[in-house]
Amino acid sequence: MTITITAFERSPDRGRGLARDMRIRWALEEVGQPYDVRLLSFKAMKEAAHLTLQPFGQIPTYEEGDLALFESGAIVFHIAERHGGLLPDEANARARAIAWIFAALNTVEPPIFDRSLVQILERDEPWYEQRLRALEDSIRKRLADLSRRLGDADWLDGAFSAGDLLMVTVLLRLKASSRILDDYPNLSAYVARGEARPAYKRAFDAQLAVFKAASTG
Amino acid sequence: MTITITAFERSPDRGRGLARDMRIRWALEEVGQPYDVRLLSFKAMKEAAHLTLQPFGQIPTYEEGDLALFESGAIVFHIAERHGGLLPDEANARARAIAWIFAALNTVEPPIFDRSLVQILERDEPWYEQRLRALEDSIRKRLADLSRRLGDADWLDGAFSAGDLLMVTVLLRLKASSRILDDYPNLSAYVARGEARPAYKRAFDAQLAVFKAASTG
Repeated sequence: MTITITAFERSPDRGRGLARDMRIRWALEEVGQPYDVRLLSFKAMKEAAHLTLQPFGQIPTYEEGDLALFESGAIVFHIAERHGGLLPDEANARARAIAWIFAALNTVEPPIFDRSLVQILERDEPWYEQRLRALEDSIRKRLADLSRRLGDADWLDGAFSAGDLLMVTVLLRLKASSRILDDYPNLSAYVARGEARPAYKRAFDAQLAVFKAASTG
Repeated sequence: MTITITAFERSPDRGRGLARDMRIRWALEEVGQPYDVRLLSFKAMKEAAHLTLQPFGQIPTYEEGDLALFESGAIVFHIAERHGGLLPDEANARARAIAWIFAALNTVEPPIFDRSLVQILERDEPWYEQRLRALEDSIRKRLADLSRRLGDADWLDGAFSAGDLLMVTVLLRLKASSRILDDYPNLSAYVARGEARPAYKRAFDAQLAVFKAASTG
């Protein structure tokens, strides 16, 4: 069955791979599943046809036969459950890899995502510096904990998993707009290991091609 | 095998059921699994023994035999996967219920949780009113989308699922500190349906008993 995902027609990150369709592309590349992409304008994202697929008017979505899914974490998990290579077979190791999926999205991503938003939306506010500093403190607490747990391992818990895939995408957003990650050399190396994966590169190139086509079209 | 979870020795919410162990208690009550609770002081949460279980020094954790898990979303999902009653059997319906788990925690909870934090930590800041208003706008956008999707159904997608359990706990945090939810009568009724479940009540009473014991001990 054909897999179709949705993505920004013109990504606000200008093709830097920070939009959430990147996670789905990367997961599909890791498991070797081809996919189609339907591009959406910001206007189309808020129209009834898309809201039926994605109640909050966001990208990405995932369609495969009768199944329609939203939420990048749920979609990556679904891909990992259906195809080999993104979750361990052993039950306890699998449950721990799933815990890292949630940790990436619920514990590490929020202050990193907020920092990006504040940099865009609150730059001219009188409190800008103070807000930014508070968020950076929160980010550093998370990174210190994550760095200690990772230690000198390649991945968070044994082999590369969907948890690592999501954690790397979360940390890449930070790397794109700050030098904070440089203070945690094992996390920088962890992110670089993710980016070096052939599946990551194929996914990155595919989303960049969309942005370039939109810019020159 | 005995299940042991961790919870606050003295919950900052004063037993109102807003701490994240409530989610685990509720899920375990829904599937009829008994559990033990190990209570932790704020100091113990940051010590090495607990950081081995929970790298970010938070509660709850979940231990069962050789398995140790963290992240309330991952723990609720684990319980739902192992025991009947919290996820549909049919594959597509199951995947959609999992999407609601992620939607509750990644899309609906962040502005609601931030609003609670701002009310505690930023009340005296010059930007307090403006920050609160911005967060309430974000919350209302999410609630409007959620309300439209729920319509006049009892639960988000067919029978009560782990997705509903988490969404209700997220909305309860809002209800505890604001009247915003009153503007969405179908969501208020949805939350009330959650609170009326016998498993919810048993879980609520159990966490309240911990707080009362700590207060009078």
